[in-house]
Amino acid sequence: MKGDDLVLAALREAEGFLSGQQLGGSLGMSRAAIWKHVAALRNAGCRIESRPGLGYRLLQSPELLQADDVTSRLTSSVFGRELLCLSSTGSTNDELRRLAREGRAEGLAVVADEQTAGRGRLGRQWVSTAGVNLYLSLLLRPGVAPAEAPQLALLAAVAVALGLEDLGLEPEIKWPNDVLLKGAKVCGILTEMEAEADRVDFVVVGVGVNLNSRASDFPPELRDKATSVLMHSGAKVDRAAFLADLLSHFELLYEQYTAGGFAAIRGQWEMRCVMIGRKINVNAGGRIIGGICEGIDTDGALLVKGRKHEPAQRVLAGDVTVLDGYMKARD
Amino acid sequence: MKGDDLVLAALREAEGFLSGQQLGGSLGMSRAAIWKHVAALRNAGCRIESRPGLGYRLLQSPELLQADDVTSRLTSSVFGRELLCLSSTGSTNDELRRLAREGRAEGLAVVADEQTAGRGRLGRQWVSTAGVNLYLSLLLRPGVAPAEAPQLALLAAVAVALGLEDLGLEPEIKWPNDVLLKGAKVCGILTEMEAEADRVDFVVVGVGVNLNSRASDFPPELRDKATSVLMHSGAKVDRAAFLADLLSHFELLYEQYTAGGFAAIRGQWEMRCVMIGRKINVNAGGRIIGGICEGIDTDGALLVKGRKHEPAQRVLAGDVTVLDGYMKARD
Repeated sequence: MKGDDLVLAALREAEGFLSGQQLGGSLGMSRAAIWKHVAALRNAGCRIESRPGLGYRLLQSPELLQADDVTSRLTSSVFGRELLCLSSTGSTNDELRRLAREGRAEGLAVVADEQTAGRGRLGRQWVSTAGVNLYLSLLLRPGVAPAEAPQLALLAAVAVALGLEDLGLEPEIKWPNDVLLKGAKVCGILTEMEAEADRVDFVVVGVGVNLNSRASDFPPELRDKATSVLMHSGAKVDRAAFLADLLSHFELLYEQYTAGGFAAIRGQWEMRCVMIGRKINVNAGGRIIGGICEGIDTDGALLVKGRKHEPAQRVLAGDVTVLDGYMKARD
Repeated sequence: MKGDDLVLAALREAEGFLSGQQLGGSLGMSRAAIWKHVAALRNAGCRIESRPGLGYRLLQSPELLQADDVTSRLTSSVFGRELLCLSSTGSTNDELRRLAREGRAEGLAVVADEQTAGRGRLGRQWVSTAGVNLYLSLLLRPGVAPAEAPQLALLAAVAVALGLEDLGLEPEIKWPNDVLLKGAKVCGILTEMEAEADRVDFVVVGVGVNLNSRASDFPPELRDKATSVLMHSGAKVDRAAFLADLLSHFELLYEQYTAGGFAAIRGQWEMRCVMIGRKINVNAGGRIIGGICEGIDTDGALLVKGRKHEPAQRVLAGDVTVLDGYMKARD
């Protein structure tokens, strides 16, 4: 555990005040170090009272994710067994890529209570309110060619959908990997890889799920496109429990993928896809491809059927707009 | 220029001895710094005489690549216009990936006189003898999906073949991107990328060309599989001139690719391919695919025709063995 977390754990355990000396003695830190950690915890949203002669008392702490809370609930054997819980970081993907370059093993997960520079697809920003949502990055080292790696983003979308279904919700997937609740985006996925021409070195799957954020947490321009489980259902989600469930689903799907290829995932993705059979426009790097969405092919490419007697077009990358129906999410 | 290069340039210009004080004065360095740079140059293969009271004199220097020698010959407008010439580095690809992550622009090239940890495909070693060959890495930021990035390795093989043809040689290409002279490998290419699921951030194309190495530079197990231009033709190659020519070809091909897609490159690759119409075995991650090589498809995947009435199989990654004919290179 980091110093901040050690001090927070000690304050949580104590019934009342703990002096700096007591804290320092039990944790093997100087009083100056204790003071520094208390300041950092306050910065991270903890309300800590300090009184001369008495010491420190924890009044309120944001619900920080604790690795133990997650791992004690895991049913996976590899995914998330090594779990790094950060109170704040720039981007969990960046953090995990650094660790991956050091050679860390598949299944390592990084979560953060807050991201100060959360990123979405195509360099877009990902709103990462502190302490209420899930910001997860998972390290994979699949034995696939770079061309196949985007399939893992579709797999991740299915894992998140399964996690949301366990909460009694009916999520839908929008290609390639947005997860929606009633047409509003509840989850975004950003996969990044480092690879040679013919083999992947590693893939980092970043998953942001809006669990307990409120409408006011989003900038005005996103309020009709984004949602959270709390906004959608009124119920608060236990983040540690959701994360453990998600990692367990993720690992099972990954085992199916490793054994049976993308064919094992495709049906599970398509049955949750909001777009199939509907009129869509895909903006593929400026080129607009219009037609009926026929699903995805065995590689994970989107199939868009234009003219009647022509074969469906395969689209590898792009932004989809559904032209009919209620769906309002674009990103 | 780095300190080593500044000191080397000063010693080259001088007719006879230069004292440490003279050198230090003209370069604005301490005598201790001069001493350090001289030691580094000796390490890099320079023979430098030092005499008390007289100073330093350059007796012999390996032919180090000088950026000016290259850029003065370039006909490209972007590729290699920014060129970093290192006397020694672990791997030019690693060096350039670091620079790419800092946001450096397309076309930046890194070359080294020596690589201490040169890498080939699939984690294999690349023998990188000092001072005689070309070890180049080039930074590309193509607007393509990760699935398309391996095409750039095929493009690079064509660029190298064109450079060798300008020397009057008849190179052949072995899929995906080995360049051969009479069946022995003269060039290896290692492309590495960092990407999101649907767009490439950057591709680093590493090119190692054996220009002036001798048989004794290769370990015994490679001597019948590897060659150099010098070993093949008896003629020594001017490295700076070859590099400038290669970068110029590379840029022209890249312009064709950017404008016309891989279709613009495919024919140039196939006409130099040693395998077409021959019986091959491909080891694709342990799975052996045998048949007649039909060429590559519009994506750059290898087409292997097995049974008569079945369509050719597409292979994305693997090691090829040609079953008939003289070709002896496997890697």
